[in-house]
Amino acid sequence: MRPIRLAMVGGGPGAFIGPVHRMAAELDGRMRLVAGAFSRDARKSEEAARTWGVRGYADWREMIAAEAGREDGAEVLAVVTPNHLHFEPARTALQAGLHVVSDKPATRDLAQAQALAQTVAASGRLYGLTYTYTGYPMVREAREIVRRGELGAVRKVIVEYSQGWLSEPVERTGAKQAEWRTDPAQAGAGCIGDIGVHAFNIAEFVTGMRVQKLCADVSTVVPGRGLDDDCNVLMRFEGGARGVLVASQISAGARNGLRLQVFGERGGLTWWHERAGELTLDWLDAPSQTMHAASSYLTPLALGASRIPAGHPEGFIEAFANLYRDFADAVTKGSAEAGLVPSIAEGVRSMAFVEAAVAASGKGWVDLQVAA
Amino acid sequence: MRPIRLAMVGGGPGAFIGPVHRMAAELDGRMRLVAGAFSRDARKSEEAARTWGVRGYADWREMIAAEAGREDGAEVLAVVTPNHLHFEPARTALQAGLHVVSDKPATRDLAQAQALAQTVAASGRLYGLTYTYTGYPMVREAREIVRRGELGAVRKVIVEYSQGWLSEPVERTGAKQAEWRTDPAQAGAGCIGDIGVHAFNIAEFVTGMRVQKLCADVSTVVPGRGLDDDCNVLMRFEGGARGVLVASQISAGARNGLRLQVFGERGGLTWWHERAGELTLDWLDAPSQTMHAASSYLTPLALGASRIPAGHPEGFIEAFANLYRDFADAVTKGSAEAGLVPSIAEGVRSMAFVEAAVAASGKGWVDLQVAA
Amino acid sequence: MRPIRLAMVGGGPGAFIGPVHRMAAELDGRMRLVAGAFSRDARKSEEAARTWGVRGYADWREMIAAEAGREDGAEVLAVVTPNHLHFEPARTALQAGLHVVSDKPATRDLAQAQALAQTVAASGRLYGLTYTYTGYPMVREAREIVRRGELGAVRKVIVEYSQGWLSEPVERTGAKQAEWRTDPAQAGAGCIGDIGVHAFNIAEFVTGMRVQKLCADVSTVVPGRGLDDDCNVLMRFEGGARGVLVASQISAGARNGLRLQVFGERGGLTWWHERAGELTLDWLDAPSQTMHAASSYLTPLALGASRIPAGHPEGFIEAFANLYRDFADAVTKGSAEAGLVPSIAEGVRSMAFVEAAVAASGKGWVDLQVAA
Amino acid sequence: MRPIRLAMVGGGPGAFIGPVHRMAAELDGRMRLVAGAFSRDARKSEEAARTWGVRGYADWREMIAAEAGREDGAEVLAVVTPNHLHFEPARTALQAGLHVVSDKPATRDLAQAQALAQTVAASGRLYGLTYTYTGYPMVREAREIVRRGELGAVRKVIVEYSQGWLSEPVERTGAKQAEWRTDPAQAGAGCIGDIGVHAFNIAEFVTGMRVQKLCADVSTVVPGRGLDDDCNVLMRFEGGARGVLVASQISAGARNGLRLQVFGERGGLTWWHERAGELTLDWLDAPSQTMHAASSYLTPLALGASRIPAGHPEGFIEAFANLYRDFADAVTKGSAEAGLVPSIAEGVRSMAFVEAAVAASGKGWVDLQVAA
Repeated sequence: MRPIRLAMVGGGPGAFIGPVHRMAAELDGRMRLVAGAFSRDARKSEEAARTWGVRGYADWREMIAAEAGREDGAEVLAVVTPNHLHFEPARTALQAGLHVVSDKPATRDLAQAQALAQTVAASGRLYGLTYTYTGYPMVREAREIVRRGELGAVRKVIVEYSQGWLSEPVERTGAKQAEWRTDPAQAGAGCIGDIGVHAFNIAEFVTGMRVQKLCADVSTVVPGRGLDDDCNVLMRFEGGARGVLVASQISAGARNGLRLQVFGERGGLTWWHERAGELTLDWLDAPSQTMHAASSYLTPLALGASRIPAGHPEGFIEAFANLYRDFADAVTKGSAEAGLVPSIAEGVRSMAFVEAAVAASGKGWVDLQVAA
Repeated sequence: MRPIRLAMVGGGPGAFIGPVHRMAAELDGRMRLVAGAFSRDARKSEEAARTWGVRGYADWREMIAAEAGREDGAEVLAVVTPNHLHFEPARTALQAGLHVVSDKPATRDLAQAQALAQTVAASGRLYGLTYTYTGYPMVREAREIVRRGELGAVRKVIVEYSQGWLSEPVERTGAKQAEWRTDPAQAGAGCIGDIGVHAFNIAEFVTGMRVQKLCADVSTVVPGRGLDDDCNVLMRFEGGARGVLVASQISAGARNGLRLQVFGERGGLTWWHERAGELTLDWLDAPSQTMHAASSYLTPLALGASRIPAGHPEGFIEAFANLYRDFADAVTKGSAEAGLVPSIAEGVRSMAFVEAAVAASGKGWVDLQVAA
Repeated sequence: MRPIRLAMVGGGPGAFIGPVHRMAAELDGRMRLVAGAFSRDARKSEEAARTWGVRGYADWREMIAAEAGREDGAEVLAVVTPNHLHFEPARTALQAGLHVVSDKPATRDLAQAQALAQTVAASGRLYGLTYTYTGYPMVREAREIVRRGELGAVRKVIVEYSQGWLSEPVERTGAKQAEWRTDPAQAGAGCIGDIGVHAFNIAEFVTGMRVQKLCADVSTVVPGRGLDDDCNVLMRFEGGARGVLVASQISAGARNGLRLQVFGERGGLTWWHERAGELTLDWLDAPSQTMHAASSYLTPLALGASRIPAGHPEGFIEAFANLYRDFADAVTKGSAEAGLVPSIAEGVRSMAFVEAAVAASGKGWVDLQVAA
Repeated sequence: MRPIRLAMVGGGPGAFIGPVHRMAAELDGRMRLVAGAFSRDARKSEEAARTWGVRGYADWREMIAAEAGREDGAEVLAVVTPNHLHFEPARTALQAGLHVVSDKPATRDLAQAQALAQTVAASGRLYGLTYTYTGYPMVREAREIVRRGELGAVRKVIVEYSQGWLSEPVERTGAKQAEWRTDPAQAGAGCIGDIGVHAFNIAEFVTGMRVQKLCADVSTVVPGRGLDDDCNVLMRFEGGARGVLVASQISAGARNGLRLQVFGERGGLTWWHERAGELTLDWLDAPSQTMHAASSYLTPLALGASRIPAGHPEGFIEAFANLYRDFADAVTKGSAEAGLVPSIAEGVRSMAFVEAAVAASGKGWVDLQVAA
């Protein structure tokens, strides 16, 4: 079992998520970065490449062509650019025979996501979308608990993802992460596209249920900002369960405390990113339970997503690494799907959610229709 | 300063909130129960009266008349009956010259609440509504923090009140508290009227802002139930702040964890009933803070709402007692208003909220209009 | 069932624990304050009496004599004076035929406690010691869990009671509570006598095991203070379990977070006063559990110690009230013991603990011998 | 800046800490594993080497000789064997001109540690000891807070490290981690040497104070076990501060919740491994504060120990990686010391602590004397 060779587009100096992809991909020794088009600035890309001891390219098209042609070329492309630059590199790589791991959201808009879905299908290659939270052991345990029916039929879902880092117009003062995330041309959508999609995805991932209808309040709170920075959505799932989704980047003081609550007929579960290694279960008539990551009583799915014994916290990088490990497994085995790693289908659903919510904001209920 | 004399309607055997009113009223020695029409069953009422060593009546009309006519008669009536029996006793007592403390909601419907508001105004008597959570020291501190502008302008409010005790149709198996609360004739509204109003009230109480528009999903989850048991509401406050209100009695496993989050321009605050003695402040660029009840650094308003030193928890009964203490102060001083104790104006607003949400459920946004 | 008549010695203006005794005694309507020698200052005592509407006395001896002689006189005396004034009033009241509820510690020293034990035995009256923490529902549940063997044999006990309010020499700046508590003549012992005894008592109460040997470090940290303000003790229980007791009044920033951990062969439990309504159980091979006060699954002993439904916090006053309620039950029934209310035997053990720890501080291990 | 080349002794199949060292060393791209003597079983060592794509050796002596002789040979040796195999490889590597990173404790006994200290001094090479907890950002922040005097003079330290995984005699049922840790020949000391040293080290690291005297209760609770599995220690620091250290591997249900409390004249701090990204400060007269890792308001020392934004948890592997990163920095710069990475001096102190506690257990107070 040798490490799989990985190339990266994006992730140059000042990037947040690019380095996370690299650390995550290499953590378990299952992938090895071999090439990158880290920046459109040739000098910066080359510099980054030297630091990591890999092949550097100034242009991602050139990189894909070159790597696809080498015996020892990259087998997987990690797409870690701003949203509007997800589609083209992913499509090109798939068409060149590479597998693709893409940061979320899948694309800048729904049409692109649907087009990409066709490309993925036609390519026969694997496509994985890093909805990071699905990589956490206790999120996977939560999914198993619901799937086994331990809570009874799910009746209500509350998911809240509050951040505060865009409370002020920091995009005007040189904060690179803020600049592109609030630029309609680069990001496509604001808060709802950046973190609302995480909340939407985790709700569907854990419950196994799909949102059918929604009613949204998507708005821009900070004056002059080009995209939404706050969104609140009422939802109805297939089967009738009620849902509430809250996402915000102007909740001053909030860090990154994604919280999911799922209530069934007999009990409820809560997972909170600030206590990522815990999963709490509350019951109608029994003591509450807290499960801890890496504990012997967990399902194999969750237990296998920890590296070290219970009580030794693993975090965001390790959750991310679980997605890469699953993806590497699938590549190695030649599987048609990458296990629990979100696929382009989830990407399409998320973009449909974003567009439906934005279009219907303030206007009442709409159906969430997603072309197959 | 002698204790004020209190009569009670309701609160007989099996009651939950009646005994709380008695304990709360007497805790600080500021009121003393002297009479009660505790039950429509004369024998039960008499029995309860004997236990408490007070005058017992089988009929509340008779009690009000008799007590109003005695030199040493009750000065205040506590109304602790099911919702549909709030209006008549309150109105009769006010007209007989008694002050009234009523359990929430003020009445069964908005029309009654508006009528009662006129009676209160005409009577010159005090009327207090026991929105218990306004009696907690740290809720009062939260209000002060917002009022002083420490968070900056408020932009977002999330209030969540999840309970699970009506997850099953317990009203059909003899649970007295469930029976009347799920009966349209007695309760008027279900979850939204029972606890949604608490959530609504605390949001307005702490922020000092009024809800102007809302969009609701009010529904009945348990089959066969006559009233709603789950409600989720998007809100817009005057000035534009966004709000989300979640209330449920079918969130299995949830106890009584009312949680309020208020986010302003510079920071946010969180108060959670399961940690009632704490108030958490999160800031854009400074460490989070946790304030503890009874601490020297609190405002006098909050500090005065604790009886014992920091680190010695006070709870629900003490919060309730703070309302009674404030009310007793106002009675003693002959004040026109009972300090922070919610008044009939809050009662009217709450009923308007309930009716607007129920009427518009699933239909989109409506204005929350409340006749002055 | 009529309320039992209570007299009080101590508890005048500025007192902390006196008012708690009154609120606790009356909360459930099972006792009623009828008389008090609230202060040695006749005017202050009279004033307090007027406020409460009870008979006031300037001298406790006079009060006991007078009340014992009245048909409607007090049946129980609450002793809420500083430590050095516990013994005489308690003895006198018992000898006059009154039952006694005393604040802790039982007496100023072990000799007094032993003498008082003889008086109690001779009197045939009930004597209860308000080790408040034994009144908390979840502490009682903890005791039941250990008693039933759910944890297996107990192997280790850690009890930590840290306060910070004596971090500075506040006794020199007029703080009444600090003055007598740091005065050898009034308090007898410092931190170890004031809160160390609580920690000792709760450890023995919950485990049902007795401390046999100890090794202590009892010291005075704030220069010039007359009594100890910090103590740390290693302990061995009968049967061999290890114990660690930490108590401090100079742990700056600590409020009143008494924490008890008990570890057995199969699992451990934790109770923490700052989360008084919760009890956490951790297991070798199963999810952790959190029990919540007033929940249906608790033992009757714990369930009966709550007044209101789960999720409605009760606190220190209610825990205190549970002791008074149990005591009232015993008085009413003419029982020889007051249920779970600590008795003079616990008072004697505690004083023996205090004296052994102080005497042996810094010198190594000593036996904790308590004359039967 | 190229990655530093790392060799490893130990860490073969079934190992816990070996893989952590590898992940930690490589996480930031500052070191790269190039060789290993992963197991005494040549086949296993070779297999592990193939998996990682590195040079495999069956014998560590052979590896050190070979690597020291290669142009591209390892520059650093990571020692991740059981305790009794720390000394020889570390000494040999230092003498061969390699730097050494060793897992804790430094050696099997004090004499070895002292001998190793001389070797380190003579070699002019760097030696780092992975007391992991010193790598956590919030532990480093705690140290800075104490160092700056924000708490005032430190008066009391409580450190508790409870685990439960040796509650049963699992060493007799094939648990590899338990086997050597309870074997006197391999481990030297039991609980006190395995985790007591972590507790001791973090207390000295954060406070900057040294333990001068101690009084211990070190014992074996599980029958038949060859080494101690529980230890409790009273301590006195230079300057007079009191300390309590609790460490246990038979606290059933406990995971790995190392908790440190430091109390000064004005406030106290608490760090708890189960909330590793938080640091709590409690003050005499101000709200409590919680600092979160990666927040802008932290000192550079702590801020630099996080890789990703606040709210994205990092854990044990990342803390470990901070030690490796600091070590790599020092190697790169040719520094004489590896920043905050614990050195052989800390290793010697820890072993002196272990031997003093074991020798004096149950016998009273002894001095902790450490030859310079």
